Amino acid sequence: MAVTSWEDSVKSLKGVILDMCGVLYDAGEDGGSPIPGSVEAVKRLKASDLQLRFCTNETQATREVFVAKLQRMGFDISVCEVFSPAPAAVAVLKERGLRPHLLVYDGVVPEFDSVEKTNPNCVVIGDAAEKFSYRNLNDAFRVLIALEKPVLFSLGRGKYYKEDDGLKLDVGVYMKALEYACDVEAEVIGKPDPMFFQKVLDDMGIQSHQTLMIGDDLVNDVGGAQHCGMKGVQVRTGKYRPSDEKHPTVTADGYVDNLAEAVETILKLRGQ
Amino acid sequence: MAVTSWEDSVKSLKGVILDMCGVLYDAGEDGGSPIPGSVEAVKRLKASDLQLRFCTNETQATREVFVAKLQRMGFDISVCEVFSPAPAAVAVLKERGLRPHLLVYDGVVPEFDSVEKTNPNCVVIGDAAEKFSYRNLNDAFRVLIALEKPVLFSLGRGKYYKEDDGLKLDVGVYMKALEYACDVEAEVIGKPDPMFFQKVLDDMGIQSHQTLMIGDDLVNDVGGAQHCGMKGVQVRTGKYRPSDEKHPTVTADGYVDNLAEAVETILKLRGQ
Repeated sequence: MAVTSWEDSVKSLKGVILDMCGVLYDAGEDGGSPIPGSVEAVKRLKASDLQLRFCTNETQATREVFVAKLQRMGFDISVCEVFSPAPAAVAVLKERGLRPHLLVYDGVVPEFDSVEKTNPNCVVIGDAAEKFSYRNLNDAFRVLIALEKPVLFSLGRGKYYKEDDGLKLDVGVYMKALEYACDVEAEVIGKPDPMFFQKVLDDMGIQSHQTLMIGDDLVNDVGGAQHCGMKGVQVRTGKYRPSDEKHPTVTADGYVDNLAEAVETILKLRGQ
Repeated sequence: MAVTSWEDSVKSLKGVILDMCGVLYDAGEDGGSPIPGSVEAVKRLKASDLQLRFCTNETQATREVFVAKLQRMGFDISVCEVFSPAPAAVAVLKERGLRPHLLVYDGVVPEFDSVEKTNPNCVVIGDAAEKFSYRNLNDAFRVLIALEKPVLFSLGRGKYYKEDDGLKLDVGVYMKALEYACDVEAEVIGKPDPMFFQKVLDDMGIQSHQTLMIGDDLVNDVGGAQHCGMKGVQVRTGKYRPSDEKHPTVTADGYVDNLAEAVETILKLRGQ
């Protein structure tokens, strides 16, 4: 196999950021299951000299519940290593004195416990899955359309993700729906927002060119990371589709069959 | 009151096209109720020398059921005077040999009885209201994303309409959602598609400059009609909002408080 651009940069890496759903595990009705080789791959990265963080647009549960699920699957992972949109949204809401109407999964509501929510003056939507009923979307719409200047936050802008039983629509699709209904442009919190990636880099104390992002979402993981100056590699698991490799605007720095292959390559090239 | 541009053109009119929901009646859980003065206004137009047609993006029922509802409200109206998107869609599907996956209100499904629907190779969405559940939208998405070239038809592109209990999201919002999810541009059947308006003009046998459209939707009724060369007047009933009168791209040829006022003005200026 030819050495690709990301392999060239492996020796100068100081840190790796992993997307979670579709890279570590496949989601599913029963909580999902680890992708073969991923538990071991995380363990090997942690034992290496590279820093490791996890960056997800997951908004179906609090980070505590989400991380506990991954620990049960066997992953060596802790809450402080995981960056997700809800805590970032809470910070923005408090800074701007905004009171959200929430259209999010029940499981993530506790993240917003410290935020005033009466008489809402903005809407926050996350991946709400079955909660994206007509009535709930209409309720969010009515809050927005009644505001002089509608303010809409979207926790990510993903189009779809993969669960055991097939592809499922993600929050970005409903963001577009409300944007059109109310003539408003949503503020995205989460990947691919550069501010979101920067917080992860700050936490590791390293620069973007020293960092590799590995994800299954070509636009939000790979393209978002590249936009910040990182290298971006796409795994052929999760929501990956063969057409991603001829995408009109985003080209990954490399493609690997799965996380295990990526980690094997990284550690081999670094002589570990 | 100053004479506005549409009043100047009243004498040369040969026909009038009326939008229905928000002009003739307000929709509601119980079937809706006529807007005061509208039953009489339709009667007066019918007694005049003007041709009259009705043009709706209504897709919650077959034309037969829909017209029967309006007749029960007291309107003098018959099925052959009403133009709605579902029959137009059926014609397009047959012409192109397409087999639709339908995401529409149950009541309109019989319009598609004559169309083959097994092994679908396109998706047709209409105003499905409560049927726009997460599961149903996801099912439509899965059909589209599995096609090499997704084909999506949208019966109208309205943002919202008004029912007795408030504003409700319309089909255009879900069209935008699926467009974004699948990187596809929907083909719109219904207002404001010029082909759709042209069929109504053809039926009356008159030219666009001889025709006035009266509607409550500034963009789809008024703007759509103007785009075809008709005059377009907006009523301040239905989904009308004061901000429509300072819309960035569409300016109606006139505004009237309701259909009764429009008809009163038309007949007075024509000496009837």
